[in-house]
Order: sequence, then structure tokens, then C-alpha cells
Amino acid sequence: MSLSDDVLGRARVKDTEALEAFYDELGKRDTVALWTVANKIEPWFPQPASVPILWRYEDIRPFVIDSLDLVKPEDAGRRVVALVNPERKDVTAAVGLLYTGLQGMGPGESMTAHRHMAAALRFVVEGQGAWTVVDGQKLKVGPRDFAITPSFTWHEHGNEDSDEPVIWQDGLDIPLVNALDAGFYEVHPNHYQERGAVVNSSLLTYGAGQLRPVGFEDGWTKPYSPLFAYPWEPTYAALQNAAKASEGSPYDGILLEYSNPRTGGSVMPTLSAHIQLLRADQHTRAHRHTGSVVYNVAKGEGYSVIAGRRFDWKQGDIFVVPSWAWHEHANLSTSDDAVLFSFNDFPVMRSLSFWREEAYLENDGHQPIQ
Amino acid sequence: MSLSDDVLGRARVKDTEALEAFYDELGKRDTVALWTVANKIEPWFPQPASVPILWRYEDIRPFVIDSLDLVKPEDAGRRVVALVNPERKDVTAAVGLLYTGLQGMGPGESMTAHRHMAAALRFVVEGQGAWTVVDGQKLKVGPRDFAITPSFTWHEHGNEDSDEPVIWQDGLDIPLVNALDAGFYEVHPNHYQERGAVVNSSLLTYGAGQLRPVGFEDGWTKPYSPLFAYPWEPTYAALQNAAKASEGSPYDGILLEYSNPRTGGSVMPTLSAHIQLLRADQHTRAHRHTGSVVYNVAKGEGYSVIAGRRFDWKQGDIFVVPSWAWHEHANLSTSDDAVLFSFNDFPVMRSLSFWREEAYLENDGHQPIQ
Amino acid sequence: MSLSDDVLGRARVKDTEALEAFYDELGKRDTVALWTVANKIEPWFPQPASVPILWRYEDIRPFVIDSLDLVKPEDAGRRVVALVNPERKDVTAAVGLLYTGLQGMGPGESMTAHRHMAAALRFVVEGQGAWTVVDGQKLKVGPRDFAITPSFTWHEHGNEDSDEPVIWQDGLDIPLVNALDAGFYEVHPNHYQERGAVVNSSLLTYGAGQLRPVGFEDGWTKPYSPLFAYPWEPTYAALQNAAKASEGSPYDGILLEYSNPRTGGSVMPTLSAHIQLLRADQHTRAHRHTGSVVYNVAKGEGYSVIAGRRFDWKQGDIFVVPSWAWHEHANLSTSDDAVLFSFNDFPVMRSLSFWREEAYLENDGHQPIQ
Amino acid sequence: MSLSDDVLGRARVKDTEALEAFYDELGKRDTVALWTVANKIEPWFPQPASVPILWRYEDIRPFVIDSLDLVKPEDAGRRVVALVNPERKDVTAAVGLLYTGLQGMGPGESMTAHRHMAAALRFVVEGQGAWTVVDGQKLKVGPRDFAITPSFTWHEHGNEDSDEPVIWQDGLDIPLVNALDAGFYEVHPNHYQERGAVVNSSLLTYGAGQLRPVGFEDGWTKPYSPLFAYPWEPTYAALQNAAKASEGSPYDGILLEYSNPRTGGSVMPTLSAHIQLLRADQHTRAHRHTGSVVYNVAKGEGYSVIAGRRFDWKQGDIFVVPSWAWHEHANLSTSDDAVLFSFNDFPVMRSLSFWREEAYLENDGHQPIQ
Repeated sequence: MSLSDDVLGRARVKDTEALEAFYDELGKRDTVALWTVANKIEPWFPQPASVPILWRYEDIRPFVIDSLDLVKPEDAGRRVVALVNPERKDVTAAVGLLYTGLQGMGPGESMTAHRHMAAALRFVVEGQGAWTVVDGQKLKVGPRDFAITPSFTWHEHGNEDSDEPVIWQDGLDIPLVNALDAGFYEVHPNHYQERGAVVNSSLLTYGAGQLRPVGFEDGWTKPYSPLFAYPWEPTYAALQNAAKASEGSPYDGILLEYSNPRTGGSVMPTLSAHIQLLRADQHTRAHRHTGSVVYNVAKGEGYSVIAGRRFDWKQGDIFVVPSWAWHEHANLSTSDDAVLFSFNDFPVMRSLSFWREEAYLENDGHQPIQ
Repeated sequence: MSLSDDVLGRARVKDTEALEAFYDELGKRDTVALWTVANKIEPWFPQPASVPILWRYEDIRPFVIDSLDLVKPEDAGRRVVALVNPERKDVTAAVGLLYTGLQGMGPGESMTAHRHMAAALRFVVEGQGAWTVVDGQKLKVGPRDFAITPSFTWHEHGNEDSDEPVIWQDGLDIPLVNALDAGFYEVHPNHYQERGAVVNSSLLTYGAGQLRPVGFEDGWTKPYSPLFAYPWEPTYAALQNAAKASEGSPYDGILLEYSNPRTGGSVMPTLSAHIQLLRADQHTRAHRHTGSVVYNVAKGEGYSVIAGRRFDWKQGDIFVVPSWAWHEHANLSTSDDAVLFSFNDFPVMRSLSFWREEAYLENDGHQPIQ
Repeated sequence: MSLSDDVLGRARVKDTEALEAFYDELGKRDTVALWTVANKIEPWFPQPASVPILWRYEDIRPFVIDSLDLVKPEDAGRRVVALVNPERKDVTAAVGLLYTGLQGMGPGESMTAHRHMAAALRFVVEGQGAWTVVDGQKLKVGPRDFAITPSFTWHEHGNEDSDEPVIWQDGLDIPLVNALDAGFYEVHPNHYQERGAVVNSSLLTYGAGQLRPVGFEDGWTKPYSPLFAYPWEPTYAALQNAAKASEGSPYDGILLEYSNPRTGGSVMPTLSAHIQLLRADQHTRAHRHTGSVVYNVAKGEGYSVIAGRRFDWKQGDIFVVPSWAWHEHANLSTSDDAVLFSFNDFPVMRSLSFWREEAYLENDGHQPIQ
Repeated sequence: MSLSDDVLGRARVKDTEALEAFYDELGKRDTVALWTVANKIEPWFPQPASVPILWRYEDIRPFVIDSLDLVKPEDAGRRVVALVNPERKDVTAAVGLLYTGLQGMGPGESMTAHRHMAAALRFVVEGQGAWTVVDGQKLKVGPRDFAITPSFTWHEHGNEDSDEPVIWQDGLDIPLVNALDAGFYEVHPNHYQERGAVVNSSLLTYGAGQLRPVGFEDGWTKPYSPLFAYPWEPTYAALQNAAKASEGSPYDGILLEYSNPRTGGSVMPTLSAHIQLLRADQHTRAHRHTGSVVYNVAKGEGYSVIAGRRFDWKQGDIFVVPSWAWHEHANLSTSDDAVLFSFNDFPVMRSLSFWREEAYLENDGHQPIQ
């Protein structure tokens, strides 16, 4: 594929005095000559402003802890250190149209309830006391548990029965919602929701995804998963089981998608999440695809090569892969597996038919590192 | 609703000599006057030929055991005592268009491979050594495990590593396939399939229904579940979990449908299966619906009232509920739960928009017993 | 494929005295040894009881006309000569699980309203005065128009503004409904429906299938087409247009399916209908498939070869193709096209994954005629 | 709903020296304190940067005509005056994430072929000679015809058999594609496509949306309509027919969506288009919804009130309604209907579950004009 714009079929008009006058007149009428912007707005391939970047948990954690003293929850709403791509500060995105941050909650704290168009998900990094109430259902979540707060569900959370802070990673589609001018926000009229008597009721009811309740809890027509929490232990067991039966993906090892047991699809219409296991010593092959990804290292040590740059990671670190960037992952341990949690906007790419995928064929599937 | 046919809007033509001559002439031309058959073929409500019936396991089991000596597997294909509704012998149906039977396999026996348009499912009643190979995948199944053999998958089975016979219940849609003139059958060209190295690979890969493999095993486009086996232990645990979170259905207690984790739908397009828990002392309310059901008592003792008749059951017994028959279930134990396995043709009723359901409102939801 | 049952993998048990005693005991317990019936209920390929058959319109029409005098509409419900396959008299089927008949209505007559689980469709053969009211919407239909009366919609019809009788072909899935024990029937409490002011409103609203009403008439969630009538003129124009752009199907010429404009699918969940054009002199190649078909010759003269037998037809004739029977069609005119209307149970075959199709490869695609 | 941010549940942290230092340190680490941006990125309701705006055809047309002389097609790619919202110049959007422009083609001109991820649609404003080739299929389109060029279909166009220029409106989802970092672009290797022999073949084949080709042209699995052109005459007839049967929508009059006849859904996964008829004298009620709309006045004269401002329009004028802006339409003629063509991103809003709609209840449904 030619990457020069000086070819038939691309815009290559030379400026003239007459044209400049023409452009001036157009500008006065809220118009522009397409050929002056065409090559920029119709690039040969995706040109994300986002860059690959890694945040070390040990660097960011102290600020999350500090924030617990610096601001009060009732003033801040919540204490979150948002991770922002250098070129995406205007929209507070970590990568593409995805937002992420690390949220801290001190022992005994609880936040007030609200809801918004943006969909949210949580991946617990540390602390035993985390709870969240989603549309009246109380969930208790521990380290490496995954939970969802779908679009416009009431939610509030806190930290109880614990002397330690909780830190979890938030993932939201806020920049996407704003790009589409669809943001709504409400505070709960009573500040706190009434809660059902049973904790983790969605997990009790839907936690065996292949067994569907019938005649109760089955009028579900909402566009998201009725299962709100996906605990770590059975998730890790599922990774290990699948590893007994399959080599997995050459690009991702054993990759599982947290799914809506009602549909087999993604947990929410805009965000999906994955958990993946890299065997000891495994180094995957590179590929690239449309869609943006935010990773959290759930277990182990290793590195990823993203767009030719190596990013070393260990548990708790967060890094991102922009759309169409080559990426591959390596587990540095010779004895233990490594596990990566990630979330992405793939459901959007698929709904809109924007999904594209390509394998890196040269050099045995591995990028040269810059 | 008037049940008399002597009303405006029903056929009520009186015979005359002229009409009899007319009918004779029609008969010679492969025709008939609609009004002579209309009331029969368009009944006020379903008029199944099938009757409610219960087969006691202790009555039928000896015949299954005897069959192991009486005929050789290579002559019989398989040794099955088929359970046949008295009014459905012409199509070998247990109820409606559903076939069922009890199949025996002696220690060390194995059957040859075949495939057919009819979909099959198994519910193991006794014996530890059962295996089946479905499209090259070997499954090991024990008591109360549920397994499927979807339409036109190669399959063969046997009994290994055991000194005892295996008896499982087969459920198939053979009468449905034949009613629609769609039956095909093939014997495997090599009599036995090649098998993958990993036993129960679908269970390892898809057994956490809410975690979907990505980048491997995910090109599944077949109209049935990629998960072929549903073991008893996690199924029973799911029943107990759901019972903590919900009252369940007033008609069925805690009722779970074995589902296709790819879609959240039934395991196969023509047959679905349920597992249901009746709490100690529970007596459900009666309802009725279109669609036929075959039950197998997985655990406990109790009775069901079907169309006004009481059928007492205990573990291993099999009974049927015809379409549109009132039915309710009672657990006779005051301390233990009871569990019913069942399979049905509900996916057919729903695909064709024939589903209808009605609660029994009188007498606090309980039928008078005849 | 071997068609002998004396092979490994089929049932081939020889009778013995011991077995006969065993069978007797099984019979007393509402059971049967599977191997005694297996080969019959699991045939190598479909064994329909239905045979190919053609009813000549000129043979049947006089009986329809006679019936108008012989019985009163209020006694007969409606005057229909049902066409019955010789081997399917028990279920009043024309072929497979499909019912068809020719209904007559004298000038000025009107029938009372009822509804039933069975889905109905009409193809008008002669007469200008036909009307039908479907769920309160009055339709006027003329020769070769197609109309639907979906499952459990109230309907009534008649013949107005005309001195001639109307004869239309009815198609219903009555035998399917009964095979699945799902039949319900109601007479309208007022005997006649109230009618909307606008005739053919569904045609005005949805008659340009690629233009969907928004903000009105668009809460449609029913499982059938909101378009109830498909007039002949635009249908025939569509056939001619498609013939300009495509050769069409080698087996069927230009074949169009009357579709639900909301979904692109069949008009009803159990029945679909086709219209097809055979060019002058065209003789299609043979194929076979699961599913049953009833044809009505809308225009022209020709013949079809079905399971090796030739059936000559002209306008108004009705013939059937049973499941899995080879069939091919020939237009005998060297100058004019021929058009066949047909309806079928293909939506059932597809919903249940029973669809199979095969081309006749020998002899240039043409069957030898017996 | 309170619109103040000084409430519990919103961020309302006061700056302190300690916090400023904290923010500085965060800034060095590609992070930000969420509460400093939360209220901006999670607004109470959508805050589009786009403003309502109308471009008068008589103002813009001269520039389109001038461009035909000013630049050569082979240098410009195509001569388009793009209409750009004052606050959306950075992404060349007319409103939200929608692009639009007026494209001119001189008599006898033809452009070279390319394809891109962005989906395109055309609405012809003037000129008889327009043609386009989409994936090898040549279409001829005249005034007020609508045509689509789905994502990554090869396309080229021109103006033939005419002495007059063609001007059509282009609509694309370019800003959406770029917001999601999914843009790809290719020039055709031969600069021009090979073309099928039949012009408008998709129209001939699929132009009766309720009649679906079977056995030919029916392997369609692409995520967009197989029908590429929707001519004006039958579209206008459909509007008039629907107006006989229904009042239509209180907000939009008779509103029809150009649909994919395969699915009944939108013509493309990211863009949909509507045609709507306002009866003589009709003044619709106001409503608002998420999603952006670009209108082109196909016929008549009137005005729209958008976010409290009145925009008068006549044939050829283009105007936009941003997300969540109140809007209502009025036909100023007392004798003739008016017709508005429009396109939108509603399929995106629905796929992502971002759709919201609200009626304006006060003042009899009419906004006060500012």
C-alpha cells in the first residue's frame, strides 16, 4: 500500500491565489473545501492520538492513598486518580475513548449513590472490604474480582469490615459517551439505595452461566448481563481448565471473555472485559486490531511489546494498547503463569462493523524492539 | 368458552342423502368436505392422544439388565427399553413427539458409532463407567450427569473401568423428526471415531458458561451448545445457590434450564432440559402449558398431580406430562430437598410461536385429585 | 450409502422364543425393545407417507360451486373442498403437515369471525369480490393476490360487489399444530369484528417493504408480518424485474419469497410462501430438500417431474412435493412465462435445523420419467 | 433535576495549596484527580459542542459550481464543499460525528475509484446525469433519489448523458470512524472498477422489499443493505400511501426509514436515513432525543424550531439538529405537502444503548422562539 498522498485518488491540490480567496469565502459560510482536509480525515490507516503507556502501580498507589486524607468523599464524589494518555487530556481518556482510574476507599467509608449513561466496571487490586450496591443488589468483592455497573444503574460503594484501604481500578466509557453527546447524570434522591437482603444475589442466581433460571428472575430484557460479579477463584480455575484442553490463541494465550450468560455476548453493549493466562515462558506472537485496550496485571511478571516498544510489567501495573498498534505479550517466569485482566471497546467496534484484525507475519511473529 | 360444537362458528351440517352422494364423489378425488372434519382438526383446545403415565424404575430396570444377556450389542445396535405412551405406539413416543428409553451397557462394552437427524440427550441413572464420544470428543459421565448428542453428530458409547452395568435415560426427538419427514441415519464408515486426547474437553473449555473462549474454539456457528456435558455436582450446587437468592417459580420451585453458553438459549434447537429443586415439604401450584415433558426423578420422593391424577415417585422413576395438562409437584420429605430432571420440546413450541401457559387459579392452585 | 439394514450399526436381532416372551412382558408395561422398531423410526432417509399428487382445477371447481348450494355458511362454518393426500387422511394433510383446500364464497355472502392457533394464508384463484378482515383490518383481494391470517388473529371473510363466486385456495398448518398438541380455537364473541375505516391499511403502510414507518405503527413485536396482503401486480412486476438482473435459481427460475418487511424473514413462523417465474421454454434442474410444498399454478402451462413422475399443469391446478422428493419444473410455452405460487413449511425446517438440500447431478440434472 | 454542581454527589472540592501541589505531582505522571474534571466529563445532560445551523442552498451552490473550474477532479479526488459546524472544525463535522457536503460533477466527468471504512450516502439535489458504481454495480440516480455506499465498498461516480452539472449531498460517518480510530482508505488498483452489465441491478432484484430473492443473490451476509438505490418516485408514493392510513408521528408527520430489506433495519450499521412528509399546514410537536441529524429539504417550504431558534427552509437547504436539542417542524404551505430527507447516527445510539427520547410537554408541544 502506497503511503504517499501524491497519487491519483488522494487530494493533491496546489495552493493558488484564486484558491486562497475561494477558501476564505468558504470559511465565512461555515464550510470548507473537502480536498484541503480529505487526506487528514481519511487516513490510509488509523492514526490514534493515544500512545502506548504503562503506569506502575507502585508509582500511582501513594497518590491514591494520599487522596484519602486530602479530600473528603462527600466533596470529591469519589477519590480517583485517573490515568490519562498524554495526547488525550482533552477528553480524559486512557486510550481511545476509554477512561480508567484507580479508586481508593478508606476503612468504613461509603460513597453516595448516583447513576449515569456511562457504563462502569471494576477490577479490585487490593483490600478485602470492598462492596458495591448496583440497582439495589449488594455485592462484596475481593482482590482480582471483576464487577460491572451497567449504564444508568444506580450505584454506590464502600469499604467495610476491614482495617485496610481498598483500591480498585475503574473502567468507563465516558469519552465515548461524550463523543456521541449522550451523557446523563443523576444523584440518587435519597443519597443511598435500599438494598435486597441477599448479598451477591446475581452471583447465586446466574453464577453457573450454563444454567439459566426459569420462571423466576427470567424476564430479563436489559441490554447487559444480569450477572454483576465474576469472582477470581472460579475465573482462575476456568483459565487453568481451558489450558488443559487447548493451546489457546497464538496472540493471547488462554483468553476468556467475561460474558453475559443470557446471550453469550459481552457484559455490556459498549465495554467488554477479558482475562488471559500466559503459560510459564510463553511469548505470544504479535497482532493488531481496531479497538483500544486497557490492561491490568492480575498475576505475575513479564512484558509486552506495543508498537515496537517494550513495557515491563508486574502485578498491579496498568498499560494500554491503542487501536491498530502491534502488540505481543511475554511471561518472564519459567515456572509460574501470568494473568492479565483487560477491558476494551470491542463491542462497539463489532456493533459498528469497524472490527479489523491482522497478524504480524515477519520475524516469526515478533516485532523488532525500538 | 363454550365447548359445544353446536354453535355458530363451528361446523354443524346435518347429513342428507344429497350430501352423502357429494361426499362419495369427493372421496374419489382425494378430497373431503372440510365441514365434516373441521371440529376434529380444529379443537377448542389441545387434545393430545398421549396420557399421563409413570414408569417405576424398579419395574423397568430388570428388563434393561436382562436385555444385556438376551441380545448382543452388535445385533441390537443398543439395548434400550423404550417407554411408550399407550396411545402413541404408532410413533414410539413417550409423550407428544418425544421419545425416551432406558439404555443398559455391560462392563467393558462399547457400541459402534452412528449419527442421525434426531437429537439425543442422556441422563445417567446408575453406574460409574459410562463414556460417550460425540464428534470425536470423549466424555465420561456419572450418575445424574446430563449430556447431549446434537443432531447429526457422530456418537458411540460404552462402559469402562467398572464392574457394574450403566443405565442411562435416552431422550430423543425421533417422533418429531419423523412427523416432519426429516429423518436421516448413517453408520460411521470406520465403525468407531478417532478421539481427541483430552477427555471432557468441552467441559474444560466451556464449563464456566459466563467465560467465553476467545481466539480459540470460538468459531462456533453450530445451532447447538458447544458444551456437551453438565455434571451433577456443580448443577446441584447451582440449585442450592439459587435457592438462597430466590423463592423460585410457584409452579416449579427452583427451576434451571441447561443452556448453551454461546447464546443463553436451549442446548439444542428441538430439545431443552431442566433441573429443578423442590424444597422440603414444598408443594407447588398447578399450571399448564403447550409442550410435552418427560421427567426423571434425580433425588428424593414425592408425587405429582397431572390432569387430576396423583403419581407417586422416587429416585429413578420416569413420568410424563402431556401438552396442556394441569400439573403440580410435591416433595414428601419434611427435611430433604427433591430434584427432578426433565426434558421437553419447548424450543419447538417457542420457535413456532405455539407456546401458551396458564395458571390454575381455583382451590389455592391445587387440583382436586380424581 | 448402504440401504440394507443387515449391517453393523443397524438393528438385526433374530426372533427367539426367549425374546418373544421378553417382548410380551415389555408390552404389558407400556414399553418396547428399541431394536424391534429402531430401523423403522430411524430410517436411512425420509420416508414420507405423502405421495406426489396433482388436483386439476377443472375437476375440483364444480364441487366447490356445488357446495355453495348444498350447505349454508352458518352451518358449515365455511364451504371448503379440502385436498387430502391418499396416505394422510388421518390428519387431513395435502402433504406432510400442510393442509390446503379450495374455498368458495357466493356473491354477497359473509362468514363469521373466529381465530385459531393454526396460521392461514390465501391465494385467490377466481372472482373479484373477495374481502377478509384480519384483526380488524379489512383487506380486498383479487385474483392471484396473496394474503395472510397469522396464528390467533381474528378473521372473517366474504364476497361483495360482485355477481360471481370467489374461489381461493386456503393453506394452513393445521396438521402441524395438531402433531404438536397445540390447537386452540375461539369463535368471536360478537360473531363479527369491528373494522378500521381504511381498507388495506397494512398495504398502504408497509407495502414498500424497504421503507419502514417510524413513530407510528412501529411498535410491532408480533412474530409475523405486519403486511397482510401482497397484490399480484407489483409481485409480477418484481418477478419480471428480477429476471432482468439475474438468471435466478437453476432449480426454480426466478424465485421470490413473500417476506415480513420488519425482519426480511418468512411471513409467519410456520408457513412461508413463494412466487416463481419460469421463462418461456425453461426447464429447471432437479433437486430435493426436506420440507413439504403445495403449488398453485398462477399463470401458464407446463409440467413438473416429481419423484420420477410427470405431472402436467395449467392455471389453477394444485400439486404437492413431499419432503426429500426430487423435483424439477418445465414451462411448455415457447413464448410466455409461467408463474407458480407455492407455500411450504420451510420456516419450521430452518427453525429446527432440519433443512437439507441436494442437487440431482446425473443426466444433466433431469430425472428419468417412470 | 438540580443543575447546580454544589450538591452532595457531585465534585465540589475547594482548591488548597496542598491540593495544588498534589495536582502538580499527578500531572507529571500522566494522571489527574478525577474530581477536578468529573463534573465536566459527566454532565447532567448532553452538552454537544455542535450548534443548530442552516446552510441555504442558494448560498452554497455557487461555490460548488465554481469548484468545478477551480480544481481538477484528478487533483481534488472530488470537488466537495463540506458543511462544518462552527465548533466542530477540528473533526470536520456538520453535527455530532456526522460529516456532510455538497459535491459537484461537471457533464462528462468521472472520478476514480476508492474505498474507505467510512460509510457514505448520497441524496441527489440537482442534475439528471449522475451515476455511481458501488462494488461493481452501476447505479443511475436522479433528483431526490437516495443511494448508499457502505463501508469499504469500492466506489466511483460521475455525470453522463447530460449538459448540466450534478450536485448531490454526501453524508458520511468520517468523524465517528476517526473518533474510534478505525479509518482505512484504499485507492483502487486499476483506478476504475469493472462493471456488471445490468444497471441498477440491486434495484431490480431487491426493489420490492417484501419479496426476497431465493436461490440467487441470497447468500447475503454483509452488515448493510443489498439494495443500494431508493428512487424518489416510489418513495414519495409510499409517503402518500402511508398518509392515507395513518396520522403519523406527532413529532415528525409521516416518517419512513429507508431500510435494509434483508433485516428491516437501517441501511448501514452506522448511518440511517429518513424521508418524511409534512401535510399542508402541519406543525409538529417538539421532542428531543440523543443522536444527531442532518436534514435536506426535498420539497416545499417551511421552518423548524431547534433549541428555541427558528430556521426557515426551502428546497435544497440543509440544516442540522444536535443531540438532545428540542426540535419541531412546520410546513408553511396551506395546500402542498413538504418533504424532508434526513440522515442520522441513530443506529449507533441504538447499538450502544444510548438512545433516549423525550416529548416537549409544555405550551401544547411548541417551544417559545428566542
